[in-house]
Amino acid sequence: MRKKIKKINAAILIIGNEILSGRTQDKNVAFISKWLNSNCGISIKEVRIIPDEEKIIIKNILTLSKKFNYVFTSGGIGPTHDDITAKSISKAFKVKYEYHEEAYAILERYYGKKKFNDGRKKMAKMPRGSKLIYNPSSAAPGFIIKNVLSLPGVPSILNSMIENCKRYLVKGLKIHSKTINLFTVESNISKQLSLIQKKYKKFVDIGSYPFFRLGKIGVAIVTRSTSLKKLKNVNTDLMKVIKIKKIEVLNL
Amino acid sequence: MRKKIKKINAAILIIGNEILSGRTQDKNVAFISKWLNSNCGISIKEVRIIPDEEKIIIKNILTLSKKFNYVFTSGGIGPTHDDITAKSISKAFKVKYEYHEEAYAILERYYGKKKFNDGRKKMAKMPRGSKLIYNPSSAAPGFIIKNVLSLPGVPSILNSMIENCKRYLVKGLKIHSKTINLFTVESNISKQLSLIQKKYKKFVDIGSYPFFRLGKIGVAIVTRSTSLKKLKNVNTDLMKVIKIKKIEVLNL
Repeated sequence: MRKKIKKINAAILIIGNEILSGRTQDKNVAFISKWLNSNCGISIKEVRIIPDEEKIIIKNILTLSKKFNYVFTSGGIGPTHDDITAKSISKAFKVKYEYHEEAYAILERYYGKKKFNDGRKKMAKMPRGSKLIYNPSSAAPGFIIKNVLSLPGVPSILNSMIENCKRYLVKGLKIHSKTINLFTVESNISKQLSLIQKKYKKFVDIGSYPFFRLGKIGVAIVTRSTSLKKLKNVNTDLMKVIKIKKIEVLNL
Repeated sequence: MRKKIKKINAAILIIGNEILSGRTQDKNVAFISKWLNSNCGISIKEVRIIPDEEKIIIKNILTLSKKFNYVFTSGGIGPTHDDITAKSISKAFKVKYEYHEEAYAILERYYGKKKFNDGRKKMAKMPRGSKLIYNPSSAAPGFIIKNVLSLPGVPSILNSMIENCKRYLVKGLKIHSKTINLFTVESNISKQLSLIQKKYKKFVDIGSYPFFRLGKIGVAIVTRSTSLKKLKNVNTDLMKVIKIKKIEVLNL
């Protein structure tokens, strides 16, 4: 009997003027996407970066949570006035924005009663009905409500919390990938790539990406599939072309 | 007499499975955003990263080109089967996808008649009515049609072409910014920041971003405004708070 594992997809919503303005270089998209695929078989199908504006956050949460199995938000859950993610998600889902009892207790224990000021208390406020995503590095938890998981923007903290998302996620089919690096130009193999892509149409996704290394121009051919067998077949076909065309392969 | 300069905004549409999968770390968002603000006074208000799929590209081009003054696309204008940006934009705007005479001539001259193969010819195909964005590093031009400017995905090539977008852009108000780095925690100043933000509501945008440096926790306070005067005022207010609270400032 075949195991029924479905394709599960997700979107990432990066909330933060500092990413939009270019002041800060985003690192969370690549990290979340790679982690989700290898650990949960979940594919990121869309990313949006938006400003810290309530109306815009609400609209994007509603759109993306309908369109994808999961939405991961990053940013805007800290203690300052520009951290409005939790409040905006509450409004999007029309639930109360209120203290989460366990989050409040965690933060109070972490800071101590005397240092648990209003800014820090704010980090315990979440949409009613949220479950916590524990934070092993700086205490303040993320949360999940419906299919939306909210994580902080600081990469080191986000990275430390991602394992704690796992319990809330339904696993899907992992996408396997293989890269062949060639010392040639894209146009030298574009016709053959196109034919091979047609042959494996729905099963394998072939990408071709130019690179510059050791003073030479090259192309990375990246094949991606949920089937290891199909991935092997497509790479056998690719190697035939490479042999016929006498293209040098860069072994890394 | 006052000069009438408007706020001009734009979106970036990154087209490419390699960015979505996390295989490649995007660098174009930060580059384009910083360049546009300093050189043209144009603010990026939304970024989307989407897969190499025609229907999805068409939908996003139509949505974003209506919503913003300009849309910058990055990726998918090379010679291979997965480069479908130009074709998809043609379909979005219901114009023919055909050889651009000047682009064809540029590429033929660059490669020489003998080496001008089908893959390379493909890079001369564009939506009818496009104007060229010249490429000083690898010849293949980008293009602009309506308010959509299409650039390649490889950062070094994109960077070399960005100056050539200028002639097509209406200039807007530049956003000035100032950063103060403080050795304190966000929650220590969150109340005061919130009050100052309220005072300068529509004119200055205040962001607060935690950092770790020299083994200490800190906060970068970033203020952004189109008015240099208002920016100065808000920073005077901030410095008063910093002095009263005896917070150490990190001079970089």
